[in-house]
Amino acid sequence: MPTATGHTKAILGSKVKGTSVYNTAGDKIGHVEDVVLDKTSNNIMYAVLGFGGFLGIGDDHYPLPWQSLKYDTNLGGYRTNLTADRLQGAPLMFSRSGRVRY
Amino acid sequence: MPTATGHTKAILGSKVKGTSVYNTAGDKIGHVEDVVLDKTSNNIMYAVLGFGGFLGIGDDHYPLPWQSLKYDTNLGGYRTNLTADRLQGAPLMFSRSGRVRY
Repeated sequence: MPTATGHTKAILGSKVKGTSVYNTAGDKIGHVEDVVLDKTSNNIMYAVLGFGGFLGIGDDHYPLPWQSLKYDTNLGGYRTNLTADRLQGAPLMFSRSGRVRY
Repeated sequence: MPTATGHTKAILGSKVKGTSVYNTAGDKIGHVEDVVLDKTSNNIMYAVLGFGGFLGIGDDHYPLPWQSLKYDTNLGGYRTNLTADRLQGAPLMFSRSGRVRY
């Protein structure tokens, strides 16, 4: 999220979760369900795009490159130029313990 | 958190929050309250070490290099070799909107 004054590039992970994600046409395609972090480096591996409930059974979750999300103040959410077709080519699975399986 | 099989280096941001943090002596010094992400790159800027409540007024919060946290399965939490003196030299302030101020 951008700040009112735009003087910081930092955002809390907890503030990202739940934020709506829109495509380039301005249609809501889902929300940021979580972020996936690399335990062995300082890298954010990706954001997880969710549809429907939050990590509920049967929900679909797709990885989004973190840097593909640009906050749009008019929409009040992130805009991404990735298409549903591209996202659905890379499914993710989550275990209940929060582990990520490819 | 390590996985049972140790075959992934990925962890969900939401699973990190609330995990206890211990010093090298094995004493609990706080918990991971949140992570701070760079909106403009794929960098995890740091983890936030909290004491007491969760972002309550009057709580202290200190930045911890993400890579300084090593999960210890015996302790059931992260171990860091940073000392309280070093942490307290770098205070953080949070606004209610989740913005981070230095």
